[in-house]
Amino acid sequence: MYFASDNAGPAHPSIAEALIRANTGYAMPYGADVAMERVRARLREIFEAPEAAVYLVATGTAANSLALATLAQPWQQVFCSPVAHIYEDECNAPEFYMGAGKLFPVGEGDKIDPAALAAAMGDSAEISVHNAQPGPLSITQVTEKGRIYTCAEIAELSAIAARAGQPTHLDGARFANALVALNCSPAEMTWRAGVDAVSFGGTKNGCVGVEAVIFFDPAKAREFELRRKRGAHLFSKHRYLSAQMEAYLADDLWLDLARRSNARMRMLADGLRALGARFLQEPQANLAFASLPRLMHRRLQAAGAVYYLDGSVEGPDETPLQARFVCDWSLPEEEITRFLEIAAG
Amino acid sequence: MYFASDNAGPAHPSIAEALIRANTGYAMPYGADVAMERVRARLREIFEAPEAAVYLVATGTAANSLALATLAQPWQQVFCSPVAHIYEDECNAPEFYMGAGKLFPVGEGDKIDPAALAAAMGDSAEISVHNAQPGPLSITQVTEKGRIYTCAEIAELSAIAARAGQPTHLDGARFANALVALNCSPAEMTWRAGVDAVSFGGTKNGCVGVEAVIFFDPAKAREFELRRKRGAHLFSKHRYLSAQMEAYLADDLWLDLARRSNARMRMLADGLRALGARFLQEPQANLAFASLPRLMHRRLQAAGAVYYLDGSVEGPDETPLQARFVCDWSLPEEEITRFLEIAAG
Amino acid sequence: MYFASDNAGPAHPSIAEALIRANTGYAMPYGADVAMERVRARLREIFEAPEAAVYLVATGTAANSLALATLAQPWQQVFCSPVAHIYEDECNAPEFYMGAGKLFPVGEGDKIDPAALAAAMGDSAEISVHNAQPGPLSITQVTEKGRIYTCAEIAELSAIAARAGQPTHLDGARFANALVALNCSPAEMTWRAGVDAVSFGGTKNGCVGVEAVIFFDPAKAREFELRRKRGAHLFSKHRYLSAQMEAYLADDLWLDLARRSNARMRMLADGLRALGARFLQEPQANLAFASLPRLMHRRLQAAGAVYYLDGSVEGPDETPLQARFVCDWSLPEEEITRFLEIAAG
Amino acid sequence: MYFASDNAGPAHPSIAEALIRANTGYAMPYGADVAMERVRARLREIFEAPEAAVYLVATGTAANSLALATLAQPWQQVFCSPVAHIYEDECNAPEFYMGAGKLFPVGEGDKIDPAALAAAMGDSAEISVHNAQPGPLSITQVTEKGRIYTCAEIAELSAIAARAGQPTHLDGARFANALVALNCSPAEMTWRAGVDAVSFGGTKNGCVGVEAVIFFDPAKAREFELRRKRGAHLFSKHRYLSAQMEAYLADDLWLDLARRSNARMRMLADGLRALGARFLQEPQANLAFASLPRLMHRRLQAAGAVYYLDGSVEGPDETPLQARFVCDWSLPEEEITRFLEIAAG
Repeated sequence: MYFASDNAGPAHPSIAEALIRANTGYAMPYGADVAMERVRARLREIFEAPEAAVYLVATGTAANSLALATLAQPWQQVFCSPVAHIYEDECNAPEFYMGAGKLFPVGEGDKIDPAALAAAMGDSAEISVHNAQPGPLSITQVTEKGRIYTCAEIAELSAIAARAGQPTHLDGARFANALVALNCSPAEMTWRAGVDAVSFGGTKNGCVGVEAVIFFDPAKAREFELRRKRGAHLFSKHRYLSAQMEAYLADDLWLDLARRSNARMRMLADGLRALGARFLQEPQANLAFASLPRLMHRRLQAAGAVYYLDGSVEGPDETPLQARFVCDWSLPEEEITRFLEIAAG
Repeated sequence: MYFASDNAGPAHPSIAEALIRANTGYAMPYGADVAMERVRARLREIFEAPEAAVYLVATGTAANSLALATLAQPWQQVFCSPVAHIYEDECNAPEFYMGAGKLFPVGEGDKIDPAALAAAMGDSAEISVHNAQPGPLSITQVTEKGRIYTCAEIAELSAIAARAGQPTHLDGARFANALVALNCSPAEMTWRAGVDAVSFGGTKNGCVGVEAVIFFDPAKAREFELRRKRGAHLFSKHRYLSAQMEAYLADDLWLDLARRSNARMRMLADGLRALGARFLQEPQANLAFASLPRLMHRRLQAAGAVYYLDGSVEGPDETPLQARFVCDWSLPEEEITRFLEIAAG
Repeated sequence: MYFASDNAGPAHPSIAEALIRANTGYAMPYGADVAMERVRARLREIFEAPEAAVYLVATGTAANSLALATLAQPWQQVFCSPVAHIYEDECNAPEFYMGAGKLFPVGEGDKIDPAALAAAMGDSAEISVHNAQPGPLSITQVTEKGRIYTCAEIAELSAIAARAGQPTHLDGARFANALVALNCSPAEMTWRAGVDAVSFGGTKNGCVGVEAVIFFDPAKAREFELRRKRGAHLFSKHRYLSAQMEAYLADDLWLDLARRSNARMRMLADGLRALGARFLQEPQANLAFASLPRLMHRRLQAAGAVYYLDGSVEGPDETPLQARFVCDWSLPEEEITRFLEIAAG
Repeated sequence: MYFASDNAGPAHPSIAEALIRANTGYAMPYGADVAMERVRARLREIFEAPEAAVYLVATGTAANSLALATLAQPWQQVFCSPVAHIYEDECNAPEFYMGAGKLFPVGEGDKIDPAALAAAMGDSAEISVHNAQPGPLSITQVTEKGRIYTCAEIAELSAIAARAGQPTHLDGARFANALVALNCSPAEMTWRAGVDAVSFGGTKNGCVGVEAVIFFDPAKAREFELRRKRGAHLFSKHRYLSAQMEAYLADDLWLDLARRSNARMRMLADGLRALGARFLQEPQANLAFASLPRLMHRRLQAAGAVYYLDGSVEGPDETPLQARFVCDWSLPEEEITRFLEIAAG
């Protein structure tokens, strides 16, 4: 009964097996492997972006930090949600990669409000040399609170950035979960909505450790390659990153896995709602924040359920305590059933 | 007939299979996996260093850059060979991780000369605030030219650094190859010889992509952890790094693989010498620089042999041209035999 | 009628003349001049801090950035007001000098709220390696909105920082203006209230361009010196910084000038209040934010008064528009009288 | 008898008086002062470069570091002499401002050898992502050993850089001393010889503390302004920088002062040569390295002469010991006469 994160489960067997299949003979190192050629072609096809620059790295923080550093200058600030992963959970990695840039937290919530963004980006005519200069917008899709921007919402935000002369980055650590929930195409959720660069997550959705970074305009491709090497993120035995991504994309596995984890969350959320849980916001993908009575939490914890609590389970039985639940692709339905039975008492 | 690098071969099957074995159920992320506990214990045992801080990263450049940044200050310079990997082949990654520190190339050769080092580190009484301040020493073992420092040589160099109040780092991307050639213990080649931190390579010697960083004094352990996260090198699904390293260390696989690649190089070198090749320096591990007649190179290239040439193969038949040869663990003996037959003409 | 800033007026004649007096013969460069010895001794005396490390730089941003960089680590965040000069007006200089650290804006106002600070610094037991780590507190005294922290307020905030193991920096670009308003001693406003390092401003209060940085604990003195040189802020002809600061401190000139500019602001504020102006907050030092009718602004602008407006003067005559007024030491009383007469219409 | 440096003498009275003249009334801060308009126009005229971007900073290290950072990328290396000020005497400031770039020491001497430069810049077709990428060339004029590049030599070096697609920076901390020695025009010594950016020194040649940075192509002007602010080198009371530079340029004072210090050095060198001194290289500007008998040094030191010695004066009377001598503009002829008399014994 593990609901703590989607980075603690195993890789999908197809992906693990792909590593074994890749493990034969010599292969050109440092991204010159032929599998990378296929990955690049496939991602361009999936995104309907035949010119896109496509790279692989092993961690989501690397994908975000390198993408933002390539889009931004050190005297700029990146606009993001105050609960964005880049703002709260990367130990100043984006600032480090940007060469000491700044992240500006827009508004209060997990989804960036267009009016707040427009106000924060300001009137560039008034930006003096004393201020941090306006830089890129970074949107987190799925948000850290489990919500999803519609394509229209992304387009509205990216248009505000574009009016300030700035590009838009999409942190898609859970790209697939958002995509299947929206039932749109990758192009619709990205470049057609004004997104310039994407961190396309694999690790949380069934890979061992691989993320793609995609720039729809390849003008900065060489700069990204140099930044990746300088950041020590260029793998010598790159074929093992390529193999993962190739298997991830094959036969729509990436979409299947996301549908699976989203469905698990719906099953969990429906069950919890029936038990009276209140949700911070309606779960749309594979994570949710729900308030349950402390007594219920104590039963679940005693039975070995693993998830994050926003406080102590000690306290009056019926007082609510919020928790975060994440379902990964590998979570068995029976575990949810068992979890709900224990919760029901 | 692939002699271009030891990062283009496959992982040893035991290591690949370890990834599959690790691929089941949930595991604590970010280095809190139980396999990492075992890896830490095993490396402490191997190094006879029960207090050592032990970490895993996926690339050699990350290991070196993070280790040096943890030992150095941004206003210092790291002393190294002018052909060191950190100086020539990491696209300013050490400088980046050090926060804009400097690397000072000592002398001319691949092995650092003690007198040149003593002169370069200078009389710290004379170092003013205007100069880059003396920082750590970094020794590359095996050197980029294929030579090996004896334990006594390492001790002599580290003593010079220690007299200047500076620690010593050992870039052991080919740690095992040096160790088996010296026939000494890991402790003898490191902390007993005055080494403070080691980049302990796995990738070039049969892993998929894993390097350990070991600090014999754990005082800076927390700082390293923060630097690793900030550098985006902390893996969420860390178990797959642990699994590789665990399999690498099991049953002395790491030593067997190094013996194998060193032996392949001896076979190749003996064969080439018999054909009249001249060596830049006597090969001691698994790489060598040898001069062969251009005609011989042309025959080899035509037959599909892959290795780096230091110039064009065009030219008078008998004129010599230097080439670099590297043997990895997976290189079949028959390939060497075939290579030598073609070379012989 | 210049009320735009206290950095646009001239230096006090005593300070300018000190430059001339210093301009004779040879003097040791780079801070080894004998005048610096006297400055150091005098500041230690004024602050009742015989061990303090004392340095001079030429700009306030240099003083703040170098002080914070010396106190903080790159993976930390500095806690400050969201309208602090370091947050809004230094174009990422603090982040740059910190080696890509972060500034965390606490709460909403110009004065940091203790409860908000305690919440922001958090429970360090919960800080994981993923988060920016807690770093120093930086207090701006006088605030950017013209208010002053009492010594007790400073002590309360610094105690919160100390509980989190963090030092406190005081940005005293207008140190003297606060001090004379509080009528306390420099020691009371700083180290006795838990402040560890001070940017002690001279430029805004009658100097040509000089600020002192004072560390009450000299442990990091050498590090500061290296950071200053590395930041290109170590003057070769340092005597001209020393001469300014010496003249500034002589015969309590610094206090006289601050009393003068504060008094000018009181005169201006009293006059504006009599004309119906509303103040954002009661002016306590030499700057104020006041709302006046647009008609009044138009008259003043037409007459050549210079100050910052928070919007356009176009609009209905009686609608209020906020403006910022700053009085520097050199502002003649007659200019205020004339300004008020014009304002009165 | 002060020959230690040209940064320990006073400012020329005209320049000090200009500070006093500037010290009246209000002036626009942060470089918007009208005096800066005049300085910009005058420097454009002097350099015959009507489009040039012109800025002022207070230290030579700031001028060099900001200029190089504006021309280079963090993954590049700047090519310079191994005894260049930027390489040896700026405590990693250029690396810091470049965002962790590298300086590559070309050859052995103070003057860069064209063949060594061409070899170091390499064949860009062979530069892989692993290497530091080629960056700007930086030439020090006058060199740290007192020699001067001819305009043709500068042109030859800058052409090599240009062939590699790289710009050329000239560190002209002693620009005027070189110019009057060459008897050429500023344009001939810079942009006509392929120089893209100049650090135009004032401090060593009679100013209080001011250096101009000049970009002949203004494309990066805005970036420089942001870098200057971010580096904390933008003066609020900028008029005092402008006033210095304006007085420095007025009536060819800058050239007169350089002629004076060069002439002093010739007088000193002629006298020392007559006493048997041997020069490291023929002095061309205002600094020289000369070997004198230890006995002579002991007499001079006993009499209070100040200059840098390359070792201890203890030793056999007639054994030579090298010393560095610098003449600044303010050095009285009588001091040189007295020095030579003492030296003669």
